[in-house]
Amino acid sequence: MPIRPQLDATSDTPLYRQLSDYIRDLILTGRLSKGDRLPATRELAGTLGLNRSTVSAAYAALEESGFVQGHVGRGSFVAWVPSEQQIARQLDDTISFATSRPSEELFPLDEFRASVEEVIARSDVGHILQLGSPYGYPPLRRYLMQQARAAGLAPDDDEIVITNGCQQALDLLQRVLLRAGDSVVVEDPVYPGLKNLFEHAGARLLGVPMTAEGLDLRHLARVLERETPKMIVVTPNFQNPTGATLPLEQRRTLLRMAQEARMLVVENDTYGDLRYAGTPVQNLKQIAPEQVVLLRTFSKVSFPGLRVGWVIGPRALLARLAEAKQWTDLHSDHLSQAVMLRFAESGRLELHRRRILRVGGEQLAAVLAACRSYLPPGSKWTQPQGGMNLWVRLPDMVDAAGLLERAQRERVSYLPGRFFEVSRPEPSSLRLSFAGLPPDRITAGMAILGRIFASEVERVKAGGSFDPAPAMV
Amino acid sequence: MPIRPQLDATSDTPLYRQLSDYIRDLILTGRLSKGDRLPATRELAGTLGLNRSTVSAAYAALEESGFVQGHVGRGSFVAWVPSEQQIARQLDDTISFATSRPSEELFPLDEFRASVEEVIARSDVGHILQLGSPYGYPPLRRYLMQQARAAGLAPDDDEIVITNGCQQALDLLQRVLLRAGDSVVVEDPVYPGLKNLFEHAGARLLGVPMTAEGLDLRHLARVLERETPKMIVVTPNFQNPTGATLPLEQRRTLLRMAQEARMLVVENDTYGDLRYAGTPVQNLKQIAPEQVVLLRTFSKVSFPGLRVGWVIGPRALLARLAEAKQWTDLHSDHLSQAVMLRFAESGRLELHRRRILRVGGEQLAAVLAACRSYLPPGSKWTQPQGGMNLWVRLPDMVDAAGLLERAQRERVSYLPGRFFEVSRPEPSSLRLSFAGLPPDRITAGMAILGRIFASEVERVKAGGSFDPAPAMV
Repeated sequence: MPIRPQLDATSDTPLYRQLSDYIRDLILTGRLSKGDRLPATRELAGTLGLNRSTVSAAYAALEESGFVQGHVGRGSFVAWVPSEQQIARQLDDTISFATSRPSEELFPLDEFRASVEEVIARSDVGHILQLGSPYGYPPLRRYLMQQARAAGLAPDDDEIVITNGCQQALDLLQRVLLRAGDSVVVEDPVYPGLKNLFEHAGARLLGVPMTAEGLDLRHLARVLERETPKMIVVTPNFQNPTGATLPLEQRRTLLRMAQEARMLVVENDTYGDLRYAGTPVQNLKQIAPEQVVLLRTFSKVSFPGLRVGWVIGPRALLARLAEAKQWTDLHSDHLSQAVMLRFAESGRLELHRRRILRVGGEQLAAVLAACRSYLPPGSKWTQPQGGMNLWVRLPDMVDAAGLLERAQRERVSYLPGRFFEVSRPEPSSLRLSFAGLPPDRITAGMAILGRIFASEVERVKAGGSFDPAPAMV
Repeated sequence: MPIRPQLDATSDTPLYRQLSDYIRDLILTGRLSKGDRLPATRELAGTLGLNRSTVSAAYAALEESGFVQGHVGRGSFVAWVPSEQQIARQLDDTISFATSRPSEELFPLDEFRASVEEVIARSDVGHILQLGSPYGYPPLRRYLMQQARAAGLAPDDDEIVITNGCQQALDLLQRVLLRAGDSVVVEDPVYPGLKNLFEHAGARLLGVPMTAEGLDLRHLARVLERETPKMIVVTPNFQNPTGATLPLEQRRTLLRMAQEARMLVVENDTYGDLRYAGTPVQNLKQIAPEQVVLLRTFSKVSFPGLRVGWVIGPRALLARLAEAKQWTDLHSDHLSQAVMLRFAESGRLELHRRRILRVGGEQLAAVLAACRSYLPPGSKWTQPQGGMNLWVRLPDMVDAAGLLERAQRERVSYLPGRFFEVSRPEPSSLRLSFAGLPPDRITAGMAILGRIFASEVERVKAGGSFDPAPAMV
């Protein structure tokens, strides 16, 4: 059986995990049998164009879960083939806390369809189909700027550029502002799409720890004593992965510190529209409009498959972003820009957002209640008031990554903390993304996780050896 | 009157030109009056966040066209305000040979609308609205791969990644394959979107001259004697800007040379579907499937405002492109991918392409006939059999960039050769993009250009000073 995975480096799953999942499925579907020999790591790495360490990590994960056994000098062999019942369960849908995205079941399809109908019925639809400006579709830009001006999010001298979601806004910013070796302040833990992007660009990431109340500003002060970072990227509302929100006073302090350090402030406000409880806090951009570059998106509050986000900031910087946008892909897709404009200006977006807020509040209540009920004593977790994620720290001796395979065998998944770490490993931490699941599934999944985590705590306390999985992310 | 242009760095218009157009419009619409003083170049550059040389180039263009006059030590002043009649004419639509894009009037709107209707009527439309794979929308990928396999354009080990047009495919390739200082072979003259992208990435461009029969392979051989480029980007069919097509035997030679030099071949086949005359030539990818990375797009044959292109190449390289795609913008917009799939698999794309081929043949015949009728003796031009562009070389003493402002006053525009040059200036050359205009407008525009060019030849021959505009692109 040749090993030929489609390595879709999807948004949240590392390559080693995809490879191990693929091989696991070959076993589960009978295409690899007990005793079959896997290719040597070096050989498979060569065939697939991967690092050998990625293949090794995949094999290690398969060993950890019992599917594969390694024999020094002889190679790795399929060791365990589950029963048919076990296989059926394994191939069912898992309860996934792994991805920070809205539930497909909540998409307002009729409202989406109506918006599309209205766009294509227009007599000037040909204009949408023609090549356009790297700044974006002018009617959408006007609409978003009016909204931003009304909310105090865009001073007169600001400009807007439409991007393919916030991810592209981050990419354009690094292309225009960063040279290899430049340093950037980021949250630690942080959204992996930011970490991977900036690291690949050759930036030096200065991770500042997250507290339950957002960025640790005393730590930031110490960083700024010895470093001169070009910019800071901060997610003040419902940060991914922790769900933490920075209080108003700390926002003011952060802005003062950034100004003194002559460090550009990039406010990633991906989750700001999704507050389920508590009182809204002013955006950094509202507090210091001239000092902040603001990133927003329709993705989290409506349809992530339509790639429409935007960046608002000083005109001269935005002219450079638009230039980079042109090199990258000329401009963002017009059809989705026009559809999102119609969805928003028709009022449908706001109606949908209210529905999402109601459901999100139920999801959040369910996950917090389940944390209290099921997590083993000594666990801690954040108390977000919105967004899609919360952060769990299990008792210190528990390795969250090492337990993932066991959780997946029981059809529950999450992302271990190491996936998000910048420079401070937290092996006992994990992210729970709750926005994609109905409350009863949240409760069911948490009950399973709680049992697995608690039994691990018992095992370690009983003197069982503590055997962390290799660091592979 | 504050000078506050919206500098949309649109696909084909350089910044200096946008600025000069903007100021010209302020004059034409009466918002700047004769005698008004323009800001100092340094000051305006600061306000707009531009290089001073860009502002200087804009002022030089305005001087060249008589709108503005510079006085050493005192600044630049509005010198000429045209009559109302002249203004009305000026603000009318120009006959633009400047952009390599299809005519909006030919867009098959009903077929587009039907494709959209069919996509949004599906019960699984929610899936399109959800986050997806960086490789692209799976049904579109399958469709394109089947087509490519059937055409001998994708060996078994190839993979496909959907990109936001060919521009993004080029960007992903440079991100994955090039390091600062790496050299790349490109055509000279070349598509400016490629030149700007690669230069900004720090690549060293090795320009190989274009002949009427495509790339000059003897020149390439000399380059390969002294350089070890990482890759070559070549457009064998109807190259932009020249319209030239590389004959079959030369394609084979090029592939052999590239193989010996261990240089990756990137075949940019943006225009390959648009052959109006003559016999199709095998693609590089068909001749040497394992050796070539192929870039294609729906943009030129259908709707450039929907940003859907793709790249086909070896699996291991494509896995790296997909990884880079994920950093860049997660994945391409799903709605347009689904719509283009429906447009293609319904047969509507092919019907539309046939119509475009018929019209394109008429456009091409019109522009070639007009070249014969109107261009001054001593002019040369390419004889494309497809695509959207041809290349004109006027008699040596004529500066094509210097005459553009005069042409624009007479409501005709084109792009001068300097916009496309890599390292060999051709001041007397220009690109004519004919695909956006009906045949009668092509003829009318060419008559005007021919008159302007011929009068310049007369003027120079009569001993008038030859005063080239400053090199500003």
